[in-house]
Amino acid sequence: MQELVVDLGSRSYPIYIGPNLLDDQNLIKKHILGNQVLIVTNETVAPLYLDRVTDQCHGLSVSTLILPDGESYKTLATTNLIFDKLLAEKHNRTTTLIALGGGVVGDITGFAAASYQRGVNFIQIPTTLLAQVDSSVGGKTGVNHPLGKNMIGAFHQPQCVIADTLTLNTLPERQLRAGFAEVIKYGLIYDKPFFDWLEEHHQSVLKLDSDKIGYVIATSCKNKAEVVSQDEKESGIRAILNLGHTFGHAIETYQHYKNWLHGEAVAAGMVMAADLSVRLGWLSLAEAKKAMNLIKSSGLPTVPPAEMNPQEFMSLMQVDKKVLDGNLRLVLLKAIGNAVITNKFEPAALAQTLSAKGKLCC
Amino acid sequence: MQELVVDLGSRSYPIYIGPNLLDDQNLIKKHILGNQVLIVTNETVAPLYLDRVTDQCHGLSVSTLILPDGESYKTLATTNLIFDKLLAEKHNRTTTLIALGGGVVGDITGFAAASYQRGVNFIQIPTTLLAQVDSSVGGKTGVNHPLGKNMIGAFHQPQCVIADTLTLNTLPERQLRAGFAEVIKYGLIYDKPFFDWLEEHHQSVLKLDSDKIGYVIATSCKNKAEVVSQDEKESGIRAILNLGHTFGHAIETYQHYKNWLHGEAVAAGMVMAADLSVRLGWLSLAEAKKAMNLIKSSGLPTVPPAEMNPQEFMSLMQVDKKVLDGNLRLVLLKAIGNAVITNKFEPAALAQTLSAKGKLCC
Repeated sequence: MQELVVDLGSRSYPIYIGPNLLDDQNLIKKHILGNQVLIVTNETVAPLYLDRVTDQCHGLSVSTLILPDGESYKTLATTNLIFDKLLAEKHNRTTTLIALGGGVVGDITGFAAASYQRGVNFIQIPTTLLAQVDSSVGGKTGVNHPLGKNMIGAFHQPQCVIADTLTLNTLPERQLRAGFAEVIKYGLIYDKPFFDWLEEHHQSVLKLDSDKIGYVIATSCKNKAEVVSQDEKESGIRAILNLGHTFGHAIETYQHYKNWLHGEAVAAGMVMAADLSVRLGWLSLAEAKKAMNLIKSSGLPTVPPAEMNPQEFMSLMQVDKKVLDGNLRLVLLKAIGNAVITNKFEPAALAQTLSAKGKLCC
Repeated sequence: MQELVVDLGSRSYPIYIGPNLLDDQNLIKKHILGNQVLIVTNETVAPLYLDRVTDQCHGLSVSTLILPDGESYKTLATTNLIFDKLLAEKHNRTTTLIALGGGVVGDITGFAAASYQRGVNFIQIPTTLLAQVDSSVGGKTGVNHPLGKNMIGAFHQPQCVIADTLTLNTLPERQLRAGFAEVIKYGLIYDKPFFDWLEEHHQSVLKLDSDKIGYVIATSCKNKAEVVSQDEKESGIRAILNLGHTFGHAIETYQHYKNWLHGEAVAAGMVMAADLSVRLGWLSLAEAKKAMNLIKSSGLPTVPPAEMNPQEFMSLMQVDKKVLDGNLRLVLLKAIGNAVITNKFEPAALAQTLSAKGKLCC
């Protein structure tokens, strides 16, 4: 088992990474402070792992809630189902919510924990690669609105994150690849040596080679923890973690969160960001091609959906949280491993990227 | 104009109190940081004051949202109307929400501000006595759930509070008296000299004597700011501000937030707390009677609704936020001006208080 710490002063917490952590009797329970627990999961994950997590809560008063599966359920209405359950079973301020599942379960459950009685404890047990390397770490919680992704939420840090790497064995391959997009992201924005390592080893990672997947999750979490520790509430550098996300969110919103997975939309978005960076003369075409090739070779999309026109794309990007006073800010690349957040780019270059579609320059 | 400060380090903010502040051109605008504003108010307050507040936002991009009036609309569904508006009009992270109205408008708007894009700025412009002396100060925001009051929310401090005392001239007398219950509360829990002053002057306050109402609002806010500064997130002393509220919330929940006003329920709840304090031998009967007499003489209820039976009452009290691990904690009185938060009381004494109904010992 590897243990990392997200260093946030009084809100610091550990991330545990390793195989079979769901059976570790000393892990979950030591982070539960009261005697009440609500485990929130979904209908896909429940039959696989709910019993094992429930077993670890032996002796406590345990409620469970099984949500439908999918990003389209990441709504205020679903959050309200959690409040209904907590109140019907009289959970008090010392209760602990456990999010067992992927990013959607973690984001909704975290927001419910942030808002129930103005804030209760919660634990993240991510069971997808996306959640293990990204969404379970850093305290961003929230739900989508029909007009924009993650528009309603809170910063609320968990008590701990428990990433059992063996849960990835039951993850559909498409989901695994989608999560891998966020792994590639850390290389692109912050960690060139990691990017180089991924170029060499990504096929064995995607085959879930045990040592390599542990290394990938730990390295991704280490990168994320480092960035988050510097800027918990995203007033500055933390925004680099959104490489490809402004483009990607527009794609997801356009599709009503239904067709592409989040990681797939981010993958295409990262290629679009690289394309724009090349057009601006900031990134070499060679490096953009390296980025695109790794994304493609990982089985991820490298161009946005053909049916989205540039005007729609632009309009959907305008509601992104990174728009400040009407100025769209984007995360772009100066080099692999070196991202910048900027609103200083030629609008014409962005228009070219949005119009390029299948003909992105990289 | 009087100016107080709620001292919370980097989240400190001023409270302005005085007549005609809505026409002060230097007040609202200096607390708005971006160029977008959403003014949230209700159908009762809008015709009275919305234009004047809109005028103060001259030169900014101003949206307005008029909600239905009443505690029964303090819900997650109403909060979502605010998100709908913000997103439809593409408000970004630098937007400022202005809550113009009573406690309900302030609580919902504050929660929307806490959750929109994980937190944006907001300004409180309270137009009821209750909101001016209590709910607009201290950063508690939130909405009700059918199974419990204020169960969903956040701590989110405003940029400033602007209490224009002349807005009370349009407040229905019943609402004025209900707000006065919270004024009496400060005397009971924390400020014996203020209680004594209120005994002497409450009738002229309720007639809105200009100097006296200004003194009452400033003294109430000063008391609240002092308590909140010591314990922003209510891990200790701040809970004394809930004198009468656990009883009162049970009454409001029982009535589905429809019949009695919040302050009326709190008034009866404070007499019940005094009654229990006497039964426990903690408070003298003479002081309990003084408390009851001031409440009665202010035109407020001193006994709970006759139709609530003790079992229902107890069950509704059990979902209060002050229940910890099954232990009901109550704010009780040792003397006028001296409150304690405790779970150490004879359950039999509480049962007597709940059964006493119209025959409370004071």
